Amino acid sequence: MKDYFKVDEWKIVEEGFDPHYNKVAESVFSLGNGRMGQRANFEEAYSGETLQGNYVAGVYYPDKTRVGWWKNGYPEYFAKVLNAANWIGIDVWIGNEQLDLAKGEVISFSRELNMKEGYLKRSFRAKTAGGKEVEVVATRFCSMVDDECGAIKYTITPLNFDDIITITPFIDGDIANKDSNYDEKFWDEVQKGIAEGISSVQLRTKKTGFEVLTAMKCVLFNGDTQVDYQSTPILKEKYVATEIKVDAQQGEPVTLIKYAVNLSSQNYKAEELAARATALLAAISAKGFDTMLAEQAAAWAEKWKHNDIIIEGDAKAQQGIRFNIFQLNQTYTGEDDRLNIGPKGFTGEKYGGSTYWDTEAYCVPFYLATAEQKVARNLLLYRYKQLGKAIENAKLLGFKNGAALYPMVTMDGTECHNEWEITFEEIHRNGAIAFAIYNYVRYTGNEAYLADYGLEVLIAISRFWSQRITFSEDKQQYVMLGVTGPNEYENNVNNNWYTSTIAVWCMKYTLEVIGKVKHTDPAKYDALATKIAFDEATETGRFADIIAKMYFPHDEKLGIYLQQDGYLDKEQILVKDLPKSELPLVKKWSWDRILRSIYIKQADVLQGLYFFEEDYDLDTIRRNYDFYEPRTVHESSLSPCVHAILAAKLGDVERAYQFYLRTSRLDIDDYNDDTDDGCHITSMAGTWMAIVEGFGGMRVKDDMLSFNPLLPGEWKALSFQIGFRGSLLNIRIAHDGVTVKNLSEKAITVLLNGDSQLVSGNGEVLVNV
Amino acid sequence: MKDYFKVDEWKIVEEGFDPHYNKVAESVFSLGNGRMGQRANFEEAYSGETLQGNYVAGVYYPDKTRVGWWKNGYPEYFAKVLNAANWIGIDVWIGNEQLDLAKGEVISFSRELNMKEGYLKRSFRAKTAGGKEVEVVATRFCSMVDDECGAIKYTITPLNFDDIITITPFIDGDIANKDSNYDEKFWDEVQKGIAEGISSVQLRTKKTGFEVLTAMKCVLFNGDTQVDYQSTPILKEKYVATEIKVDAQQGEPVTLIKYAVNLSSQNYKAEELAARATALLAAISAKGFDTMLAEQAAAWAEKWKHNDIIIEGDAKAQQGIRFNIFQLNQTYTGEDDRLNIGPKGFTGEKYGGSTYWDTEAYCVPFYLATAEQKVARNLLLYRYKQLGKAIENAKLLGFKNGAALYPMVTMDGTECHNEWEITFEEIHRNGAIAFAIYNYVRYTGNEAYLADYGLEVLIAISRFWSQRITFSEDKQQYVMLGVTGPNEYENNVNNNWYTSTIAVWCMKYTLEVIGKVKHTDPAKYDALATKIAFDEATETGRFADIIAKMYFPHDEKLGIYLQQDGYLDKEQILVKDLPKSELPLVKKWSWDRILRSIYIKQADVLQGLYFFEEDYDLDTIRRNYDFYEPRTVHESSLSPCVHAILAAKLGDVERAYQFYLRTSRLDIDDYNDDTDDGCHITSMAGTWMAIVEGFGGMRVKDDMLSFNPLLPGEWKALSFQIGFRGSLLNIRIAHDGVTVKNLSEKAITVLLNGDSQLVSGNGEVLVNV
Repeated sequence: MKDYFKVDEWKIVEEGFDPHYNKVAESVFSLGNGRMGQRANFEEAYSGETLQGNYVAGVYYPDKTRVGWWKNGYPEYFAKVLNAANWIGIDVWIGNEQLDLAKGEVISFSRELNMKEGYLKRSFRAKTAGGKEVEVVATRFCSMVDDECGAIKYTITPLNFDDIITITPFIDGDIANKDSNYDEKFWDEVQKGIAEGISSVQLRTKKTGFEVLTAMKCVLFNGDTQVDYQSTPILKEKYVATEIKVDAQQGEPVTLIKYAVNLSSQNYKAEELAARATALLAAISAKGFDTMLAEQAAAWAEKWKHNDIIIEGDAKAQQGIRFNIFQLNQTYTGEDDRLNIGPKGFTGEKYGGSTYWDTEAYCVPFYLATAEQKVARNLLLYRYKQLGKAIENAKLLGFKNGAALYPMVTMDGTECHNEWEITFEEIHRNGAIAFAIYNYVRYTGNEAYLADYGLEVLIAISRFWSQRITFSEDKQQYVMLGVTGPNEYENNVNNNWYTSTIAVWCMKYTLEVIGKVKHTDPAKYDALATKIAFDEATETGRFADIIAKMYFPHDEKLGIYLQQDGYLDKEQILVKDLPKSELPLVKKWSWDRILRSIYIKQADVLQGLYFFEEDYDLDTIRRNYDFYEPRTVHESSLSPCVHAILAAKLGDVERAYQFYLRTSRLDIDDYNDDTDDGCHITSMAGTWMAIVEGFGGMRVKDDMLSFNPLLPGEWKALSFQIGFRGSLLNIRIAHDGVTVKNLSEKAITVLLNGDSQLVSGNGEVLVNV
Repeated sequence: MKDYFKVDEWKIVEEGFDPHYNKVAESVFSLGNGRMGQRANFEEAYSGETLQGNYVAGVYYPDKTRVGWWKNGYPEYFAKVLNAANWIGIDVWIGNEQLDLAKGEVISFSRELNMKEGYLKRSFRAKTAGGKEVEVVATRFCSMVDDECGAIKYTITPLNFDDIITITPFIDGDIANKDSNYDEKFWDEVQKGIAEGISSVQLRTKKTGFEVLTAMKCVLFNGDTQVDYQSTPILKEKYVATEIKVDAQQGEPVTLIKYAVNLSSQNYKAEELAARATALLAAISAKGFDTMLAEQAAAWAEKWKHNDIIIEGDAKAQQGIRFNIFQLNQTYTGEDDRLNIGPKGFTGEKYGGSTYWDTEAYCVPFYLATAEQKVARNLLLYRYKQLGKAIENAKLLGFKNGAALYPMVTMDGTECHNEWEITFEEIHRNGAIAFAIYNYVRYTGNEAYLADYGLEVLIAISRFWSQRITFSEDKQQYVMLGVTGPNEYENNVNNNWYTSTIAVWCMKYTLEVIGKVKHTDPAKYDALATKIAFDEATETGRFADIIAKMYFPHDEKLGIYLQQDGYLDKEQILVKDLPKSELPLVKKWSWDRILRSIYIKQADVLQGLYFFEEDYDLDTIRRNYDFYEPRTVHESSLSPCVHAILAAKLGDVERAYQFYLRTSRLDIDDYNDDTDDGCHITSMAGTWMAIVEGFGGMRVKDDMLSFNPLLPGEWKALSFQIGFRGSLLNIRIAHDGVTVKNLSEKAITVLLNGDSQLVSGNGEVLVNV
């Protein structure tokens, strides 16, 4: 699979068509604008292997749970992002032959994703079974400026014939989710119609009742000349189309421009969708395709200004990191605090398109540094607004008094997942949500957030921990029974060090924030305490007692924290000593064998040492790293980045570089043979972290940005932009020195290898190494 | 639900019809003869709540697995006993109204299961919507003598009218399993036909290709006079019927006798089924219904002679225990070593009708004492014949060198179950299979079984344990990681004491049997060692090393074995201190909360102390019993019996009696609100054990039967029959003494309260207490 796509610093390029890679290419070439997105399916019919996918952010359906063995506490539904109406479709008939690349001969084919300007372009020459040759050039994008709109320019040129070409742009809402549990379709038709050049289908989701209106307006060109056209309307169940017959001449291009909109009842009243669509289509078609595309390029230029990373001397790494940044920006723009980041973004349906702790652990740092503060803040508010449901969720599991357990997987705050060892036990996610609050405040300095929103969440989470933790009469210490840590290759263990550590940290931080808010904003504190019936003395007393008497498993002899009590009873054969044929374990070993083994799927103790590095000396981190890394199989896409950061911290640039390589081209190179399902969006943020926190060594210390750069020998230089409290910096790391350039007016003091450096507005500082 | 059925020492009686209890009654009144069986569905149409069920032993279908989250190692299929052709159906129309108790008025209704003679009788008077009153008496049975046959006598008397009554006996093979994973039907039609008075349907199971021919022959009577009749054949998909119109007169009974056969291609060539059915139907119809019924009574009398239990002074307990013995005998007769005992027998589909470790732990003791030796032996041979598949099963999980893991749930030796914490981890089942071999040899004295079959199984099982157990460098002891003990309310724990104990016992017993067979039958030993490539020195060396260095969790202070390492870290609130509203936990608590709790579903440490009681002094057993019983919620039907036996052993007759009460009428009183799905067949054997091993205190010691009787104060006397090595004994326990009567010619020495007593042929011994 490797090297299927061409290397280019700003583009993903496919030359020639290989149907076996089509689903991978559909994922990699996906488009999105935060509001809607889609896989890179063809506009015209394609009868080969394809995974059709169009998604509208925030529109979901609670699919009835299907499990083999029901466990009490399982949610009845799994909310899934919906595969929505296909708005890209343009059916093409040449004479009486349908254009279909799976059927005719593909003479040439190229597809490119222009990441700099944000569009997808596909060109091909094909010959039908009847020998007719055509050239097609199709360009499309999801507009970042008009984020409910997309546009396609589709040009067909007959190369060796004159004939009628029938072009039928359509909207097809008769769509099913591939992952539907009971083979149900999730959409009902509300209305459809074709009038005044606008074709539309309005659909309503079953149960959730979201309405989405998808509409199109088409313009036809002969050569460069816009022409009027006659069309025949076609209306079927959840489907509208207009059939246009063109008397095409050899060598003369015919172009259809399709303007489309996706409007959701989340943003407008359902009855206003149609009028709104008409207005929007009028506006964008008046603007025209080329203007829209130019605006798109400008919008992307603005994005890149804030978050581009330049790796000099390594085009593959350059392409990899840009692809990751591009996809992250396509997935989430931070405009709407009801939205979040699914593990596949708009590139597939896997994992239900829902929210995981990936958001807090991996994505928040990315958006904090590369976007306006409101973006990360909206991710935090998403959880704040779901606090009530997290409390309900905990209540269903037997917790009380406002204890909150955030769901493992969610769309609207309700738990969706149904594996007991994950759903009920991978509770460290609660800690990541608290940590994101800490991280946000540390980064932005915006302490007001704590009084307004943060503390309420923190208390609810700490309440959960204080009930979930048990006092062991036998040990005379508090213990944490029955959890699954970040390493999902151990399930239902006692005293997972990471979970216990983050739980205790949550309670400490909650106590600290209580103290802070009581001091800075006593009125808000009192209002909150009343609202949530907070019995401060008793509850904080319990928190403090747990903090004082928590049991953390560790081994004196090895000087390490234990992943869980029984970890050292396991057979200690390192990953390097396993036959290669046994990897990946998840495919080669039965589940119980994996669980009994020492092998770690993703950072667990090391995740804790990464989050709380300031609490541990470098030797402790090194001993744990040296112990656990050789036992880690990195079978989660979220694993290598944390290891890269720790390796860099420990000065091992070569190891850090190896870890980085495993993530940055994960999807482009289909490293895990699973990109056909969609791209690994949230782990892309991890790749960014590996660069900025790993090689850049960036941290926030005492309200300042701090850098401890380390450049892989393979690279000539590395540079990236970071926004921090109103300043925008460019940091360029070369082998002979580090340059910090202030791109903003506001002066800023940063720490460079521990030394404080003042960088004046628009100034720069060079530190030789 | 309690007291719905009338108390009778030999019958289960339902007076009056309550549609809400119909499914429970259908389960309780089920019929079977080891070869086939059925729920007590009505012959005539019934449009109310019903669970139709007809089953043919050994005929199964591998239904494609359906799970929410696939784990590597899961089997692709779950073999299920099939709901087979309905052969009891007799559709009845009175004029133009169909007889259907859900529609007309039920004037009177009674149903009784005659356990003494083995038949089901139902009588009712009903009035149709049109006001026509009929009386119906229906008697049917599955013949113990002709075990592929059943017969029904169905008498209708018009009470207030003359009219045409249309009687349509049918066979309907268009049947689906209620528990089908993909709503598939599992049967295809091979052929059907009506000729020479015989109607038949031959069906073939999908995938497994079993063929079953179900055929009927009907005879009509006016009053007591057999009459010829005209009939109209009706043939539909997988369905045959003959419609008979009778000009019925008020007060004159019309009787249809329906003879039926179920023949399976497991026992005959598929192409011979039809001829065989014709011959069989000719034979039984020539015999006639009354003769068949008399033979049935005689066959049951012979059964009862060997296994009746008489409880004097407690009719409810009497009814309960007879019901259990009756159902066990209906389910399994031991004629066929390809058959086994599903948890629901022929009374429902739940749990797939498959084999669990219940067979070895609970049923083998029952059949050892109450049936010919070949019955228990056939249960053992069933596993012996599946050894190859158990080895394959272990191989799929990464074990090697002929290690065997018997499946958790199976039909043909292949694992069917798919919950990782059970399928892969509830491996103590392997121990129960080894223990059954030990138990069989201990009871029968038949040591030749070891050389012929037993040792091969024992070595394969010990090989499994020796690979499944890990040497902990940290502890310098062997540990058992990641198991689920008999208490399924703890999953994936380390060092479950019961599992470790039975594993080590298996290896000890294997070493002992190796020594024995090498000595008594060196040629067979050598042949076996060659066959299975047994490296005696290395392998027995490993067994011995594990035996010497196994880690067993225990607590010095409390003087108890620990269910698993972390048991004492749990919150120690006893069951009696739980609010009643929280029980049963399985319905009231989320699964993780159950797992984190101390509460025990069924005997775990105590199961081990029961199996291996000779290895522990009474004080140790008492300390563990006193510790664990108050933590046990008995939410498995298999739990109370072991506790009853231990309580009796510890001299606590009152507790033993309380435990006994919880099981003996479990289904009759629908104690757990789940008898509608079927009866708890395997736990019925536990009830028998509670009587014989609990109150009877029966054990085998040094090749002798030993009794330590203890009679509950509530009972006048208790007596039971026990077969042992060619002798048949009746033991009667009264408050003033125990009588042992030898019903056979052969003298026998028994131990009574530790004293040896010679009981001469046909003699008796009375010991006063």
